[in-house]
Amino acid sequence: MALIVQKFGGTSVGTVERIQQVAAKVKKFRENGDDIVVVVSAMSGETNRLVELAKQVSDGQPVPREFDVMVSTGEQVTIALLAMALIKIGVPAVSYTGNQVRILTDSAHNKARILQIDDQKLRTDLKAGRVVVVAGFQGVDEHGNITTLGRGGSDTTGVALAAALKADECQIYTDVDGVYTTDPRVVPKAQRLSKITFEEMLEMASLGSKVLQIRAVEFAGKYNVPLRVLHSFQEGPGTLITIDEEESMEQPIISGIAFNRDEAKLTIRGVPDIPGVAFKILGPISAANVEVDMIVQNVAHDNTTDFTFTVHRNDYSNAMLVLEKTAQELGAREVVGNTDIAKVSIVGVGMRSHAGVASRMFESLAQENINIQMISTSEIKVSVVIEEKYLELAVRALHTAFELDAPARQGD
Amino acid sequence: MALIVQKFGGTSVGTVERIQQVAAKVKKFRENGDDIVVVVSAMSGETNRLVELAKQVSDGQPVPREFDVMVSTGEQVTIALLAMALIKIGVPAVSYTGNQVRILTDSAHNKARILQIDDQKLRTDLKAGRVVVVAGFQGVDEHGNITTLGRGGSDTTGVALAAALKADECQIYTDVDGVYTTDPRVVPKAQRLSKITFEEMLEMASLGSKVLQIRAVEFAGKYNVPLRVLHSFQEGPGTLITIDEEESMEQPIISGIAFNRDEAKLTIRGVPDIPGVAFKILGPISAANVEVDMIVQNVAHDNTTDFTFTVHRNDYSNAMLVLEKTAQELGAREVVGNTDIAKVSIVGVGMRSHAGVASRMFESLAQENINIQMISTSEIKVSVVIEEKYLELAVRALHTAFELDAPARQGD
Repeated sequence: MALIVQKFGGTSVGTVERIQQVAAKVKKFRENGDDIVVVVSAMSGETNRLVELAKQVSDGQPVPREFDVMVSTGEQVTIALLAMALIKIGVPAVSYTGNQVRILTDSAHNKARILQIDDQKLRTDLKAGRVVVVAGFQGVDEHGNITTLGRGGSDTTGVALAAALKADECQIYTDVDGVYTTDPRVVPKAQRLSKITFEEMLEMASLGSKVLQIRAVEFAGKYNVPLRVLHSFQEGPGTLITIDEEESMEQPIISGIAFNRDEAKLTIRGVPDIPGVAFKILGPISAANVEVDMIVQNVAHDNTTDFTFTVHRNDYSNAMLVLEKTAQELGAREVVGNTDIAKVSIVGVGMRSHAGVASRMFESLAQENINIQMISTSEIKVSVVIEEKYLELAVRALHTAFELDAPARQGD
Repeated sequence: MALIVQKFGGTSVGTVERIQQVAAKVKKFRENGDDIVVVVSAMSGETNRLVELAKQVSDGQPVPREFDVMVSTGEQVTIALLAMALIKIGVPAVSYTGNQVRILTDSAHNKARILQIDDQKLRTDLKAGRVVVVAGFQGVDEHGNITTLGRGGSDTTGVALAAALKADECQIYTDVDGVYTTDPRVVPKAQRLSKITFEEMLEMASLGSKVLQIRAVEFAGKYNVPLRVLHSFQEGPGTLITIDEEESMEQPIISGIAFNRDEAKLTIRGVPDIPGVAFKILGPISAANVEVDMIVQNVAHDNTTDFTFTVHRNDYSNAMLVLEKTAQELGAREVVGNTDIAKVSIVGVGMRSHAGVASRMFESLAQENINIQMISTSEIKVSVVIEEKYLELAVRALHTAFELDAPARQGD
């Protein structure tokens, strides 16, 4: 008998029928003898409807405190509906808002952080055999004001509840059946991972695999809450996200290949190679609220150097304006930029103990005649920037090179 | 400088534009130096949408506790929107749910009664110059469960807040500009009353003038909260509902004429005139969940008597079945009934001190050749049942007889 926290997102509870399906699934777990806490989001579309109303009434800039009072109603409707659906099929259940549980947060409306969870009510209900249905995404500050954790915060609620209750597992139900070695739309031979570490998941998530909220993964890692990604309406074991137990001898070097096409590249050439120049270049970019991802500076030539970085494509023209001004001030030779790039990353804790992973990546790309424009590495990932049109080719080549392809099935 | 509680119903806050109109109205009061607490209902249509969802998920019988969690979100959305709209036009404001205020109720979900209101937060906000926007219709029980007061409960919330804060006035904004001497659609010369007593209002309300919730009027009378009915979007003094101060020498004998066509009449003839027969007749009716309004029993003839009562027309056939069974058991002569009746009542505290009010009523009806089928009286009202087709004629004749007609305007 395990204690499981299950989180269902907006699409999984988007209609009365789906809510009834979720109730049936929860009932099955109960019948296996598990104690269940369910965290739900607002029905899909509901949060957008509320946000739209709030914007209309306040010319696009809703008061943060009142915004939270309003959007938190979305989840409040879902918890009541799911509790009703459970009771209807004979499963004792009770719903709680963030305030009722008491999920205490700080007072940063619209992006609050959970400080503490009171588990007393929940434990009493579980002991009494009830399924507890909790509103995701919301909490209450010390003054009794309703707060929200920001979009996608329901994953965080799930993990935080699992941590507070020392649950055996936190299951995140989504519209995919797990985490894949890469996007199956690009590589048909991509495989579902049965296991991945928190660190790998963080790298995969931040690189564009939008299965889980980064914050929830960080939270799960910090409190060592085993996380499992599963499909809401299909059976299957999903993917377990857990700490690196280093017990599996056959752990592959690379767990997955992440990529994105959201970035653009900017280069400032012929900058004087003096201390503080990096700050002089990136300070104004950051002041313009543009986030920088990769940064590469190579060794100097004739006392000048070249400096390249990537930003989100939406910020490209803004960043370019700022950079051109900086170039004038620094007396740089020129500024160039490029939006048709893509970033490809190989991710895996296995590379810590395996030399030559990066070079195998570069070799594989070279064999396909793909030119590498930028390189950046961390302990468990290697990222390269290439021309966008080679993206699919690169991902497929790397997927094969690192032996991630699914074995051919009979008949293939 | 006065402290005013203002209540706006679902139609008054049915769209973003209307919410902005309400905000503008509140701002005007603030600028006059008044302290304002606003109570709002859910946007019109919203409660029905939620009720529909709840019914769908639970085959028509929602769990009461969860139903309250759900429908209470309707008002929660409105308070946030109105607070935003106020802040947008420079009026400091803050919203509170029933739980946040703390409006403590009993645990009778869907029809809870208010036990106590904590006025601390509200007073602090008012002192700080903020308009306080409170969700109507909802509260919280001692265990932290969300409760609702039942449909129309927002009026009650308004009155209860006014009582707790010892407000100078509780203003109920509606789609009419006040309480009239009778329905202006029947009597074009009907006049808006500038004042009416709680008792009169109760009689008028229960007789079909659906301006205010009866419960709110009772509550206001009990705590002596001056109530004023006003039009949401038209200027005007409305109608003040207050205690009978007996100071106005010119107070008319009759304040208004109420009527309804919702009832049906049933008569059981030739019942043995023995003690307990009334209970034997009405006991089974009540057991069938049929509410009885007027009851008339006349003196006996030959040791038998006739017994007549009225019920809602929807209950007529049901009541008839029950009554026929009773007639057999009692050996009554026959059972007859009639659905084409109407009830007309004259209402006024003035009749306490004026003899001959009833006879003036009967005289007026006789002059129009209208036959009276039943009569029932209370301290401040006289009701008669007549044939339905004479209803308009009767109301107009009485309106003139009791000098309620508006003076002819120039050009009339």
